[in-house]
Amino acid sequence: MRDVVYLVAASLDGSIARADGSLDCFPTEGEHADDCLNSLNAFDDVLMGRRTYEVGLAQGVTNPYPRMKSWVFSRTMRESPHENVRIISGHAVEFVADLKNKPGRDIYLCGGSELAATLLEADLVDRVEVKLNPLLIGAGIPLFARVAQPLPLEIVRHRVYSSGVALLSYRVKHPGAPG
Amino acid sequence: MRDVVYLVAASLDGSIARADGSLDCFPTEGEHADDCLNSLNAFDDVLMGRRTYEVGLAQGVTNPYPRMKSWVFSRTMRESPHENVRIISGHAVEFVADLKNKPGRDIYLCGGSELAATLLEADLVDRVEVKLNPLLIGAGIPLFARVAQPLPLEIVRHRVYSSGVALLSYRVKHPGAPG
Repeated sequence: MRDVVYLVAASLDGSIARADGSLDCFPTEGEHADDCLNSLNAFDDVLMGRRTYEVGLAQGVTNPYPRMKSWVFSRTMRESPHENVRIISGHAVEFVADLKNKPGRDIYLCGGSELAATLLEADLVDRVEVKLNPLLIGAGIPLFARVAQPLPLEIVRHRVYSSGVALLSYRVKHPGAPG
Repeated sequence: MRDVVYLVAASLDGSIARADGSLDCFPTEGEHADDCLNSLNAFDDVLMGRRTYEVGLAQGVTNPYPRMKSWVFSRTMRESPHENVRIISGHAVEFVADLKNKPGRDIYLCGGSELAATLLEADLVDRVEVKLNPLLIGAGIPLFARVAQPLPLEIVRHRVYSSGVALLSYRVKHPGAPG
């Protein structure tokens, strides 16, 4: 089965964006950024919440990940601005559970916080890879909009870049899984 | 001048405790815990907010750091339950600014979130050392109760333990400081 990987930039204090959704506080250049771009080659599909997709859309980017099939979850968007981007207005959980069973490489969960929480609650997130920025931003948008109860992770990889960004990769311990 | 070091355990999603203040979700044993206990030998003084002090007090611990002079900031506590613990009812900022100028080794900022924010705002925190636990806990008590604007940090040390705890040490870039 394909893994769903939540690969996301965050501040040391656990926000993935400022409270207003802006991301300009995170540096997007440097060695860690190149590595992250390269790591996207491992994915065939990308999952985005509507608000996450709209961050790029506001700047005219209709197809942010041209190499992947893009799925945007929204109950309000009627039409996709690009043929590579499909709008899913039904249940995200059923759609993603089904997608994981289809052939293909891993699935990139781009965000945001709401979609990540919905998929985490349904035990559909397999890995969490955080680019932890050396930065405090205070109350912002959290990694996950909700976490029902403390959820243990297993660290599988880490690297600290000269920029101070720490890439920390974790595997979600699925309830009922061995070990 | 002595450094004020905020040494604190947090979840990957940036909480230092659950919303109700409980800390039972963080493992307190293992190699990382031994290292943290040892690192406390570098300090001569410890700063605690009233609520942080009361976590131990509720379990009968009146003098949690016997090797350090303990300062508890509170406007409501009248009397200290232990001779090693002094209550500071005046301004934390002035007290800590003064303490940093006195002779001695570095100063341990134990927490919590409110006191840390107050001292950060006054540019009195020099280092932030986070024991990042491989755990998601959702909305809890944040690292800092407030951060006025994005504050860059410089990573100075890191270590990942077999337990999955990542110890990440940062220096606060003081406004106006060189480089």
